[in-house]
Amino acid sequence: MNVTVSRSAHFNAAHRLHRKDWSFKKNNEIFGKCNNPNFHGHNYELVVSVTGEIDKETGYVIDMKILKDIIKNEVEDAFDHKNLNLEVPEFKDLNPTAENIAVVIYHKMKSKLNPNLKLEIQLYETPRNFVTYKGN
Amino acid sequence: MNVTVSRSAHFNAAHRLHRKDWSFKKNNEIFGKCNNPNFHGHNYELVVSVTGEIDKETGYVIDMKILKDIIKNEVEDAFDHKNLNLEVPEFKDLNPTAENIAVVIYHKMKSKLNPNLKLEIQLYETPRNFVTYKGN
Amino acid sequence: MNVTVSRSAHFNAAHRLHRKDWSFKKNNEIFGKCNNPNFHGHNYELVVSVTGEIDKETGYVIDMKILKDIIKNEVEDAFDHKNLNLEVPEFKDLNPTAENIAVVIYHKMKSKLNPNLKLEIQLYETPRNFVTYKGN
Amino acid sequence: MNVTVSRSAHFNAAHRLHRKDWSFKKNNEIFGKCNNPNFHGHNYELVVSVTGEIDKETGYVIDMKILKDIIKNEVEDAFDHKNLNLEVPEFKDLNPTAENIAVVIYHKMKSKLNPNLKLEIQLYETPRNFVTYKGN
Amino acid sequence: MNVTVSRSAHFNAAHRLHRKDWSFKKNNEIFGKCNNPNFHGHNYELVVSVTGEIDKETGYVIDMKILKDIIKNEVEDAFDHKNLNLEVPEFKDLNPTAENIAVVIYHKMKSKLNPNLKLEIQLYETPRNFVTYKGN
Amino acid sequence: MNVTVSRSAHFNAAHRLHRKDWSFKKNNEIFGKCNNPNFHGHNYELVVSVTGEIDKETGYVIDMKILKDIIKNEVEDAFDHKNLNLEVPEFKDLNPTAENIAVVIYHKMKSKLNPNLKLEIQLYETPRNFVTYKGN
Repeated sequence: MNVTVSRSAHFNAAHRLHRKDWSFKKNNEIFGKCNNPNFHGHNYELVVSVTGEIDKETGYVIDMKILKDIIKNEVEDAFDHKNLNLEVPEFKDLNPTAENIAVVIYHKMKSKLNPNLKLEIQLYETPRNFVTYKGN
Repeated sequence: MNVTVSRSAHFNAAHRLHRKDWSFKKNNEIFGKCNNPNFHGHNYELVVSVTGEIDKETGYVIDMKILKDIIKNEVEDAFDHKNLNLEVPEFKDLNPTAENIAVVIYHKMKSKLNPNLKLEIQLYETPRNFVTYKGN
Repeated sequence: MNVTVSRSAHFNAAHRLHRKDWSFKKNNEIFGKCNNPNFHGHNYELVVSVTGEIDKETGYVIDMKILKDIIKNEVEDAFDHKNLNLEVPEFKDLNPTAENIAVVIYHKMKSKLNPNLKLEIQLYETPRNFVTYKGN
Repeated sequence: MNVTVSRSAHFNAAHRLHRKDWSFKKNNEIFGKCNNPNFHGHNYELVVSVTGEIDKETGYVIDMKILKDIIKNEVEDAFDHKNLNLEVPEFKDLNPTAENIAVVIYHKMKSKLNPNLKLEIQLYETPRNFVTYKGN
Repeated sequence: MNVTVSRSAHFNAAHRLHRKDWSFKKNNEIFGKCNNPNFHGHNYELVVSVTGEIDKETGYVIDMKILKDIIKNEVEDAFDHKNLNLEVPEFKDLNPTAENIAVVIYHKMKSKLNPNLKLEIQLYETPRNFVTYKGN
Repeated sequence: MNVTVSRSAHFNAAHRLHRKDWSFKKNNEIFGKCNNPNFHGHNYELVVSVTGEIDKETGYVIDMKILKDIIKNEVEDAFDHKNLNLEVPEFKDLNPTAENIAVVIYHKMKSKLNPNLKLEIQLYETPRNFVTYKGN
């Protein structure tokens, strides 16, 4: 009996869509106002979903308090009230698009979970734009 | 042409996470404040999703009024304003975690639907915690 | 690395559930008050999801501005503030159920996207009723 | 101890912004695509708020079940799945703007409530546009 | 320059609408299924609003971290995962209707805030039912 | 017949809570992680409410398209994808707290509206924190 357990979280951050190896002109053509060198920001809303068997003893797939703590350690403490481009090492050479942020969060979370559990990351950059990543 | 049709519903209930065959101490270690012997409660939000072929005559996968009535009979009338541990027979010996409630709702709903239709149950215990069950 | 990118949009429209080749009595039996000959209406909320590889250059699956423009051209400009039965050619002989509207939107959007991208359409007819179509 | 009690409800309807005593040209200049002669429609979300003293016996300002029933009789049964211009007598000669619909709902509700209770009507025409009327 | 600063919070609790000094029959007539002796429960959503002058030094009416901490101490720690009737002293002889809970929260919060600040409490018992209290 | 008409909008921006005339140490004591010199950011959600008489001709308090355009010109074009501290002149010497941003938006909007209309600005910095300003 595979059940998926989902937990929401959020963090606020500044970012800029930008490649250091491109000219400012090319960055502007591709990323438009998202390339603002003074940064802009978002309230990122995150939904972390974990799929696995229900433990017959507890009735849990995973204890939600444990999942909440991993999200806090791996994502909220690392990203909240930060400048993603300047202060989060994963984006030193990786453009912080919503797609790339979701993939980074996936790998940070995956390494802390029981390998039998499947993981899905959903990240809202705004209430109207979001991305989903389930690994490969 | 398989389409999924989803309908939301809700019910309010009291519950307690607890196993009768465990000591109070063990229940407390595992379930913390969710083991409060005086119960606590939730506004459970439910999304029932049914997948099947569009009927060429009606343009429906399932008449939403029929789906709404099955949810009312099987879930709302059975769970709303109830104490899940004390008053809902399915949880007499089953810990009413969100995972287990979703599985119980799945089986109650499945038995009333055309067997050609696939079913998915999504249950929000709070706006930030939810589970999803699609059968096996 | 397949990632799904989703974008929300909305449109307001009038419609009536009705088949021209059925009697009024039969339409009423099947579609009830949704068959009102003077029409009723909805704020349709749409979520368009596109799945594909992250482009290594840009970090995008698809530029959200491009996706937003396709939704505007194919869906918002075609359906917003319209009477679906009388003014949208796709529903001249097709009953505008939520299921059928989602399939129509799917085909309009699919024809404008890179064929390597998978597409999913989610359409809320009301906040509590919605349908999902992913093609075949 | 004055407390406000609020209850949400909704109805779906078709309408057209239009004055019979104006030319089509003038209607179009003022109301644009909202003047579509074939109508468009909305999921109207309604919040009815009633302010008064807490009854010392019951702890209620008003029994929510009673408020729910008045909303059903006065608003949902009268407006849901209707064409406001053609089928709701209050709009026979009154343009069904959100402002005017809120005022009509206010007067329908007010006549059924204890005159000691203050009333406020909030009506969402779309998730982003809404109006509020509190009487004079 | 008076500005209102609002902060949301939530707590889950069990309750029962009931007066000890009434017969079970009378309690049932007035409170219906809300009088279930085994309790039912809710996810209460709370919005605390504080109105006052903007401090010219900080640009704050009140530091949101301070407001958040008062809400945690006075409301969340006192009510969350509790049975309101049995475990919260304020409801020992007071029926825990949404109206009465809002008044209790108002007085608990008011005593911890600078007396120059106006306070408003909004409490959602369900997503569709809520109450508002501003003091007298 | 005074009715209030409300319109939602949003903008994404980076900011930092900071006073140039304070030491870094004092800024950190008061503003904590909000003083991050590399900035953080938000999806600001804005609700602009305008109160006045219903125009007997049109049934409008204000044409929503006109209100939408003023919001776009005065707020969205000025603040969206900007760094509030570095790029928005109103915050050159004013700390961009939610309170101060709401007051700035109020004055920008007020100057473009008919002086007979009352104005209220509600600004969500996150889904759980918001401020309201109605002028003096």
